[in-house]
Amino acid sequence: MGQPYDRLRAAMREIGHARSVLALLGWDQETMMPRRGAPARAEQIAFMARLVHERLSHPALADRIAEAQADPDVLADSREQANVREFLRDHERAVRVPAALVEELARTSAQAVEVWRAARERSDFASFAPWLERLVELNRRRAECLGAPEGGELYDALLEEYEPGMRAREVESIFGSLREKLKALIASYARSGSPQHAALRARASIERQREFNRFVAERVGFDFAAGRFDVSTHPFTEGIAAGDTRITTRYTEEAVFEAMFSTLHEVGHALYEQGLPKAERPGEPLAQAASLGIHESQSRLWENQVGRSRAFWRWLWPHACERLAGALSAQDPEACYRAVNAVQPNLIRVESDETTYNLHIVMRFDLERALLRGELSVSDLPATWNARIREDLGLQVPDDRRGCLQDIHWSTGSIGYFPTYTLGNLYAAQLWQAAGRDLGDLDGAHARGEFFALLQWLRERVHLHGRRYTPVELLRRATGAALSPEPLLGYLEHKLQDAFAR
Amino acid sequence: MGQPYDRLRAAMREIGHARSVLALLGWDQETMMPRRGAPARAEQIAFMARLVHERLSHPALADRIAEAQADPDVLADSREQANVREFLRDHERAVRVPAALVEELARTSAQAVEVWRAARERSDFASFAPWLERLVELNRRRAECLGAPEGGELYDALLEEYEPGMRAREVESIFGSLREKLKALIASYARSGSPQHAALRARASIERQREFNRFVAERVGFDFAAGRFDVSTHPFTEGIAAGDTRITTRYTEEAVFEAMFSTLHEVGHALYEQGLPKAERPGEPLAQAASLGIHESQSRLWENQVGRSRAFWRWLWPHACERLAGALSAQDPEACYRAVNAVQPNLIRVESDETTYNLHIVMRFDLERALLRGELSVSDLPATWNARIREDLGLQVPDDRRGCLQDIHWSTGSIGYFPTYTLGNLYAAQLWQAAGRDLGDLDGAHARGEFFALLQWLRERVHLHGRRYTPVELLRRATGAALSPEPLLGYLEHKLQDAFAR
Repeated sequence: MGQPYDRLRAAMREIGHARSVLALLGWDQETMMPRRGAPARAEQIAFMARLVHERLSHPALADRIAEAQADPDVLADSREQANVREFLRDHERAVRVPAALVEELARTSAQAVEVWRAARERSDFASFAPWLERLVELNRRRAECLGAPEGGELYDALLEEYEPGMRAREVESIFGSLREKLKALIASYARSGSPQHAALRARASIERQREFNRFVAERVGFDFAAGRFDVSTHPFTEGIAAGDTRITTRYTEEAVFEAMFSTLHEVGHALYEQGLPKAERPGEPLAQAASLGIHESQSRLWENQVGRSRAFWRWLWPHACERLAGALSAQDPEACYRAVNAVQPNLIRVESDETTYNLHIVMRFDLERALLRGELSVSDLPATWNARIREDLGLQVPDDRRGCLQDIHWSTGSIGYFPTYTLGNLYAAQLWQAAGRDLGDLDGAHARGEFFALLQWLRERVHLHGRRYTPVELLRRATGAALSPEPLLGYLEHKLQDAFAR
Repeated sequence: MGQPYDRLRAAMREIGHARSVLALLGWDQETMMPRRGAPARAEQIAFMARLVHERLSHPALADRIAEAQADPDVLADSREQANVREFLRDHERAVRVPAALVEELARTSAQAVEVWRAARERSDFASFAPWLERLVELNRRRAECLGAPEGGELYDALLEEYEPGMRAREVESIFGSLREKLKALIASYARSGSPQHAALRARASIERQREFNRFVAERVGFDFAAGRFDVSTHPFTEGIAAGDTRITTRYTEEAVFEAMFSTLHEVGHALYEQGLPKAERPGEPLAQAASLGIHESQSRLWENQVGRSRAFWRWLWPHACERLAGALSAQDPEACYRAVNAVQPNLIRVESDETTYNLHIVMRFDLERALLRGELSVSDLPATWNARIREDLGLQVPDDRRGCLQDIHWSTGSIGYFPTYTLGNLYAAQLWQAAGRDLGDLDGAHARGEFFALLQWLRERVHLHGRRYTPVELLRRATGAALSPEPLLGYLEHKLQDAFAR
């Protein structure tokens, strides 16, 4: 590689090291750090975040990027061009938002999260409302600094952060048709099966569950020589660096299979992190996830398309019987399969079945977009939320704790994040359909506990490319088709019919 | 505080954050990191070490320090003067050694450690010799850059790194008289008792030992809300930041009390870290350890003066019986007391009893000083080592693996480090004598498991001062006396007589 590009890659690498450190500080805080280390940890994280921002927004970087763009080795290779393009994108976004606004958003949301926690506890929306107003206003200013993309709206400037190239208008169109058809599915299948996980009410000691979950994670493909598996209050995945990807889960003795689905979800994220070419390209965009939606597609695919399939439960059944001896209430794998696919509208997003879940997301997208546009005032949020839940799920919201105060996202100042969950589900279903077409009998392999072919397909089609393509372009290349709601709808319809209508 | 000093403290704080990150990276590497994360971790550590060095040697810092020295708030307070003085010291030492030399030392020792490991394995000194020659030469150059202190020798420039204010000539004088008297003690008491720990040959499961060691650590005073206790190949303590001090130990089922003494040792280090005023002065010299010798004095005091006392074993005995049920071979606490104090010359430093241990250190000091002065050539090291072991311990060294290849220190490029171990023992004995004088019946309190009075005394006399005084001045203020070999000799003589001569 020519000199100018080498110098730029060195800058990417150093920012990458600082980001790895940030990832470790965060992981340690949630899993290992002693309680009284919290104040100092906050300072360490702020210091490292400042360092990353300083390096990424450094005025000299623009010239270095321009020189690298003219480097013959870059000009000759479209991958390297993408690498430089994406780094320029990061630089420009870092430069556009003034440090004072970044800091104000960070400080306000740090306080707002605490206010939200207390407000949710007491189901007291009024105390949180002024904070949410402030956060919407700060996000509006941030979006204005970033600038709406050509032909787009302000919301797109925020969405770009999480889902490059995606536009609110496109999300609206896809989510709109999804919404109507999901409502119809729920009308047909709600309560048709046993309630979610009921046949699976299983108790087992934490130690036994731990071994069981490690077994599942390893069989699915998680590389323990390049990762760890720990416990935290909220499960998460942290891709710290090449050879170092860490997942967590949480256990309760009563809810064996909730922990297992959480593990499958995080393993899906981790397989993506382990598949990115970080050793070859430390800190480079081509070794980073394409988007939050693509990241979520990997977790959902393993959790849902694989983990809620009949084939998976046929494979898992004897292992579960052996390793959770006596803990299982279900009679056979078929009962498990039905239990984990039952449709049952639920007020709480994170407790919802696969179908209901997406209606929660579609609503949150509509509401946060309306808030940002000023079409919905914060004071009207609870009533609007409750009306929508009645309309979409047929449920009465008894209090804001189980309504618009249930999620942490808005209190952390994240607007534009929610749609990536359902985008992830859409991508997952479309990838699953294409993988099935390419690989043939996936169910047969999975019933034998052979998951490597699917992982290999995802590695080649998704993981290895990093940020080379936009999410939608990556999807088009992997599946041969444009983003569409049909694969997800088809997948859900087929499964519900298969499980409950024969 | 006035403006200039505030600005300087902000610089100290940021360097402190970067050092905390380095400490966490190191701790995680030894305890948590997956195997395949090692190459990226080395890069992260190098990046952060570079950052610390850049900040500490920054040319603008000299002016900022000078301004702070003239700040009225500093002029009015001798503590703040010491804080600035010590930071200036760090800055000057960082500036004096060229980055190229720092890097060459780091790279050479990283390779030399691997060569040493292989050489020790095969007891093949010849393969390590050229690396040791190179490391001695690089250390000589480093010492020349740092400059010998007034009236001192080149070795002092290195010793200053670990033991500020200490001079080789003073060490030589104290170690010289220590050596003769320790040899006499060994002649009187060797093999007089049962061999080290023999009466304590105890087996217990790792899980049971883990609980037992946590119990001991907590009762002695380790604050678990501000710390962790894990397992690593080599036990160590890492003071990461305010409220976050982490210790490790290692367990084997056969050697219950080796793990316990290792725990007491690390707890001693940790109590010092937990007692430094890090929350009030993050990153400031006054919240840092006075020296390696003072640090070691804290670990040795809890391991030896406390942990090898009759009173401690009277307290521990019923707890050990209960928590290690059935594992103990000793009949009573008196047998334990004698077992852990038996004198038995040993070829290996880390397996040596309290008395023999110091002869190992005195020898290493003499040898490394002679190497640096060019009075001893690397090729003559094994023969000189072996002759000295014969002379001091009356033992024949069968191979270099159990001779001059046994320790890692020289291969990591550390010269000037070894004497701090025996300085730590000297400080510990002197502090113990003074604490006993000030507090009265320490043995009575310890026999009841009450260790707080001693900890409180150490907090006030040692921990709270950070780097305000040189080690010897700190010791003088804490004990009212100059550094002397007598307290250590008196302590050893008294105990050996008490245990074995009545």
